[in-house]
Amino acid sequence: DGKWYENLSFRGYAQFRYTALYGDNAEGLNVPNDRSVSDTESFLIRRGRLILSGDVSDHLYIYAQSDYAGSTGTGDFALQMRDLYADIALDADKEFRFRVGQSKVPFGFVNLQSSQNRAPMERPDALNSAVEGERDIGAYFYWAPKEKRKLFSKLVKEGLKGSGDYGVFGIGAYNGQGLNRGDLNGQPHYVARFAYPVEFKSGQIMEFGLQGYTGSFVSRTSNIAGVGTPSSPEHGNKDERMALTYVLYPQPFGIEAEWAWGRGPQLSDDMTTIETASLQGGYIQANYRIKQGEASWFPFIRYNHYEGGRKFGTNSPWDNVSEVDVGLEWAPNKDIELTLMYTHTFQRTNTSAAPYDEVENADRLGLQLQWNF
Amino acid sequence: DGKWYENLSFRGYAQFRYTALYGDNAEGLNVPNDRSVSDTESFLIRRGRLILSGDVSDHLYIYAQSDYAGSTGTGDFALQMRDLYADIALDADKEFRFRVGQSKVPFGFVNLQSSQNRAPMERPDALNSAVEGERDIGAYFYWAPKEKRKLFSKLVKEGLKGSGDYGVFGIGAYNGQGLNRGDLNGQPHYVARFAYPVEFKSGQIMEFGLQGYTGSFVSRTSNIAGVGTPSSPEHGNKDERMALTYVLYPQPFGIEAEWAWGRGPQLSDDMTTIETASLQGGYIQANYRIKQGEASWFPFIRYNHYEGGRKFGTNSPWDNVSEVDVGLEWAPNKDIELTLMYTHTFQRTNTSAAPYDEVENADRLGLQLQWNF
Amino acid sequence: DGKWYENLSFRGYAQFRYTALYGDNAEGLNVPNDRSVSDTESFLIRRGRLILSGDVSDHLYIYAQSDYAGSTGTGDFALQMRDLYADIALDADKEFRFRVGQSKVPFGFVNLQSSQNRAPMERPDALNSAVEGERDIGAYFYWAPKEKRKLFSKLVKEGLKGSGDYGVFGIGAYNGQGLNRGDLNGQPHYVARFAYPVEFKSGQIMEFGLQGYTGSFVSRTSNIAGVGTPSSPEHGNKDERMALTYVLYPQPFGIEAEWAWGRGPQLSDDMTTIETASLQGGYIQANYRIKQGEASWFPFIRYNHYEGGRKFGTNSPWDNVSEVDVGLEWAPNKDIELTLMYTHTFQRTNTSAAPYDEVENADRLGLQLQWNF
Repeated sequence: DGKWYENLSFRGYAQFRYTALYGDNAEGLNVPNDRSVSDTESFLIRRGRLILSGDVSDHLYIYAQSDYAGSTGTGDFALQMRDLYADIALDADKEFRFRVGQSKVPFGFVNLQSSQNRAPMERPDALNSAVEGERDIGAYFYWAPKEKRKLFSKLVKEGLKGSGDYGVFGIGAYNGQGLNRGDLNGQPHYVARFAYPVEFKSGQIMEFGLQGYTGSFVSRTSNIAGVGTPSSPEHGNKDERMALTYVLYPQPFGIEAEWAWGRGPQLSDDMTTIETASLQGGYIQANYRIKQGEASWFPFIRYNHYEGGRKFGTNSPWDNVSEVDVGLEWAPNKDIELTLMYTHTFQRTNTSAAPYDEVENADRLGLQLQWNF
Repeated sequence: DGKWYENLSFRGYAQFRYTALYGDNAEGLNVPNDRSVSDTESFLIRRGRLILSGDVSDHLYIYAQSDYAGSTGTGDFALQMRDLYADIALDADKEFRFRVGQSKVPFGFVNLQSSQNRAPMERPDALNSAVEGERDIGAYFYWAPKEKRKLFSKLVKEGLKGSGDYGVFGIGAYNGQGLNRGDLNGQPHYVARFAYPVEFKSGQIMEFGLQGYTGSFVSRTSNIAGVGTPSSPEHGNKDERMALTYVLYPQPFGIEAEWAWGRGPQLSDDMTTIETASLQGGYIQANYRIKQGEASWFPFIRYNHYEGGRKFGTNSPWDNVSEVDVGLEWAPNKDIELTLMYTHTFQRTNTSAAPYDEVENADRLGLQLQWNF
Repeated sequence: DGKWYENLSFRGYAQFRYTALYGDNAEGLNVPNDRSVSDTESFLIRRGRLILSGDVSDHLYIYAQSDYAGSTGTGDFALQMRDLYADIALDADKEFRFRVGQSKVPFGFVNLQSSQNRAPMERPDALNSAVEGERDIGAYFYWAPKEKRKLFSKLVKEGLKGSGDYGVFGIGAYNGQGLNRGDLNGQPHYVARFAYPVEFKSGQIMEFGLQGYTGSFVSRTSNIAGVGTPSSPEHGNKDERMALTYVLYPQPFGIEAEWAWGRGPQLSDDMTTIETASLQGGYIQANYRIKQGEASWFPFIRYNHYEGGRKFGTNSPWDNVSEVDVGLEWAPNKDIELTLMYTHTFQRTNTSAAPYDEVENADRLGLQLQWNF
């Protein structure tokens, strides 16, 4: 019951990005979450986030995050919500919590890790294609014992690029059609996750995770020239994945690895129907953290692989991704970060429009300035 | 001239909702303001409000409310303003005020009462169809003597579900085409309202109200299969209503009743033209307030009737509504509210698309969690 | 490292407007930035701004401004960003700064001057048609010596309607397709500006400016009845202007004058192609400032001329503007401003739709209430 500005606070961050393409192959590239990978784009504000959050009372914590670069289906950028949720704790230590509203779907460590903290520009396709935008409208129950809550918190605060606290155990239901959207089949998706960070005597911290979700996804369809609009089951296609997570936090050497298997909506080879097809993929990332006073250097390398449907794409086309990213994040202080990332694409499907061409052996260089406040 | 955070403050609330439909009839239901009443929807954030307000100086009070769940005509939710106005007071006691900008149209107690405080999920159709979204861009003059201003304020603060202070007398002009829109005929709507709350020696408080508006409304039209696009007068159809209000505030038993009569745009029976047709309807609600320490229980029952055109609907179709709601609002403390509401529909027109079918004898159950901050 | 509310602050302003048209000629008027100039409009919230800004650290200043009246291409107003940038200073006095994100393009004193401070309702066409919306996504370098920074600041704070500090020298690159949009040709626009305010012993302050930009602009095209969709070069048309600025700040008599010359995209006379054509225009404004305690009176007269293409208009039509504005801004205190402005149009092209008619000898009267917080 203090002053409003003591209960609530605003903070945020923004990412300004430019991507250079090398060679003719690169001009065909289309990366679902990164508009700057295009020969017609110049500068992009990839994320422009403003977060209002706070403990309103002993049992209620609220979180509301808006984004500048929301697309509402029209050409111009507009403001959109990313998160809008309440945490209702059942106990004083907040070990048992319900989270209700629009929030991150607890599937994949890399999806839960904030983009403010992630080193590579975008999340790997195999994990992110499960929940593009990472969030959905739903309700979850999270449980984590007090000491693990402290550890989750420390992993973010000390710059170790943790995921934040989504519980040691989480379970929930959500619409399943993506953030800022209603459901289309009246059947929620269900998700469960187990994540266990453990601190060794050496000071090294590892995290093990297991997660899965199941539901039915209704694909958005549109006309394909010469083929027509693909047909799709009225209540959608089966959409389910499970994934394993291993993280060694960077003190100074770190590893992040996740792999997902499942099945989901995918356009048939003749492009006439959207069917349920199997999918798999993941990533492995190695990184190294160097601290010098206020500054930090964070070189990383990541291999990213996916083969399956891109359900959130119009007509849910097949999607084959095989890329390696090599980059360096440099933060002169905690307010500013500069990232340089070179990506070699062995293969990447252009999922933006039929005939969904494969781009091979393409190279690009991304440059990003992030400011935190 | 204090600090900005002492002059201005942020607060807000959000409503998370799920509606279950019972029986085949219910699948045809379409409730204008409640997307969750649908067999293809699951979870809905019905309202996600953030309010910035404050006394900037002795004579200027500002109010700006944004909503998460704004629809900009495209599929995805985006941020939109609800209110954006200034109150310019002529005297130190603020008995005489101009309100300029986008604000609530003073027609109907139930339209002025905040959704944060209302017990039933949505407003009754007869009153709300006059000003869907409740707000419009315009200018008003409000007058209320000091002691009535205190009473209006007390009716909200003490949880008696008052309307807030829209004056004992109010008069104004507004565009008339709905919130976040410009005018379409260059002819403002005019509205006037008289509301008189009175506190009896017994402590019981009653409020009597009389209000009316007049203008011309330009309907949005679209093609009806097999009929074509309905024709409509260039400057719109006559649109005018008057309404009576009676409120007995719940100490502990309360009553809310309003009835409206008028005429407005309505699609002709053969669906070829939009004409001016008569309309009427209203609601009566009984409720009971139980306080237990921090907690409160608020059972209610409401009968809701309307027969007339739904002007804000595309093609302004006819709309027949006859429903009874029985519900319970439970607030364990002032931050969280849980509402359960069962609705039996005797009749409700599906105004979303031609042929505008009547749904009869349908049942639904709504569950809502609200958090306040 | 203080409290968030000491590092960051919110402020804003809003403009509520009504425009009356006189005579039949006026009904054909279309003013690009002013929807209220229309015989079908009534009340308009022209601007509804909320600004979050602050010095996050010694070297990082952030600025984020949202607007209520953003149009996302659909009918309803929605929230959009105007500015979202970081100033990264290289020195303690912030004489050398990089500005990255979405911010104002430093072309034209009148474009940089805030609408909160400008006396006439809208900016003159010759300068504003270079950067409608004034902002774009890009990166700039600004330099200004300490004493000039103080002077830029004083010119705003003391109500002299300065531009704010965009450096004595500025240079940068931006997308060039307008605010809240990506680039369309992968070729940034480049801009440079020199602005030199000087305070004489008499206390009079003058400012001299020179600025220019160059780039290629991709016009948006749409079908013209009976002609078809105009063709346009794939990477757009050459788009470059230079302009001169002279300002005598109003103590009490003031002058503002700018003139621009250049070439840019313009629809051909037969409306079949978009070509590069020459353009020129500017404005001269005289004003007088009267202070009476807290109140101020600010009468002004402005002549506004432009002949060239309106590149941001669909099909980049030709645009001939010749208008004189006579107005009075009255501020009873610093929170509220009332502006009355009478405009006589000698000539103005209706650039909203083919056949792009010329309106001649039309009159209008605008009334605006602004509140600041």
